[in-house]
Amino acid sequence: MSQVLFRQLVPLQVKYKDCEERRINVRVSIELQSVSNPVHRKDLVIQLTDDADPFFLYNLMISEEDFQSLKLQQGLLVDFSAFPQKFIDLLQQCTQEQGKEIPRFLLQLVSTAAILDHSPVFLNVVETNPFKHLTHLSLKLLPGNDMEIKKFLASCLKCSKEEKLSLEQTLEDVTRQFNFTQQ
Amino acid sequence: MSQVLFRQLVPLQVKYKDCEERRINVRVSIELQSVSNPVHRKDLVIQLTDDADPFFLYNLMISEEDFQSLKLQQGLLVDFSAFPQKFIDLLQQCTQEQGKEIPRFLLQLVSTAAILDHSPVFLNVVETNPFKHLTHLSLKLLPGNDMEIKKFLASCLKCSKEEKLSLEQTLEDVTRQFNFTQQ
Repeated sequence: MSQVLFRQLVPLQVKYKDCEERRINVRVSIELQSVSNPVHRKDLVIQLTDDADPFFLYNLMISEEDFQSLKLQQGLLVDFSAFPQKFIDLLQQCTQEQGKEIPRFLLQLVSTAAILDHSPVFLNVVETNPFKHLTHLSLKLLPGNDMEIKKFLASCLKCSKEEKLSLEQTLEDVTRQFNFTQQ
Repeated sequence: MSQVLFRQLVPLQVKYKDCEERRINVRVSIELQSVSNPVHRKDLVIQLTDDADPFFLYNLMISEEDFQSLKLQQGLLVDFSAFPQKFIDLLQQCTQEQGKEIPRFLLQLVSTAAILDHSPVFLNVVETNPFKHLTHLSLKLLPGNDMEIKKFLASCLKCSKEEKLSLEQTLEDVTRQFNFTQQ
């Protein structure tokens, strides 16, 4: 079972080695997945996709255990259950700063490797104040492999086909009504 | 450059090892791809997909050289340029026999391996007469790997999104006209 906590476009600054820095809008999904086998646990799944680039896919799964090390390592003061909402608040601050030349809050995807290297990347939420850059959060994401991208695209295609079917039905209804008024 | 010669649903009998025989409609695409680098040549690309199963993908590329061995091996009497139309004629005969309990012409996908084995399969056009089964053509297709399926799904998603956009625009037009008549 999976509960979608957030699925929105967020402005992102992409910085790859040897590549010009660019800004795109990415779809950030945050889901809580409940697993009950072998023991009951919850995992937080974070996914970045780009509606304009079908092969852009980055994933991170954080279990409660993973979160404990993340908490320690980054000096977080919230627990696992409160973390998703804090992360969403940060993302919304980035969205609010969209369009500003020097946004106060910025979501960054940073890699020290070249773009096709399939190495981990860092997703950072960075605040820029007059004094310095403050990293509020830094998450290590993995680029999707061919199998993961294949599955992701299959689910996108399923949604797109369903939306198309529903549009076709609405169009048929409206056209029928329109033709009726023309008689 | 690529020229689509045929892209239609054709009834197919699927026979895998250890699996019950089943009949589905597959989309058969036949394309002629022109390559001019390093030398000018044409390749015939045959692709089987299933609109209901995003991961169903089988490919075969036949160059003029490949065709010479196919011709020899299967005793074909046509040359490379006439082959696609002959193949299309056979596919259309299979389509015409659709729905018959014992179709005279049948397109078969046969594998001696299990379904998830990623081994080559044979696409056969078989005529059944009162005396025997006659194989008119037998082509060896390879199942798509994750990367090929990923690329195929990305192109399907692109088409689906374009069709959705065009539907949305038509719906908007018809709704506007309808609302106008209601005033």
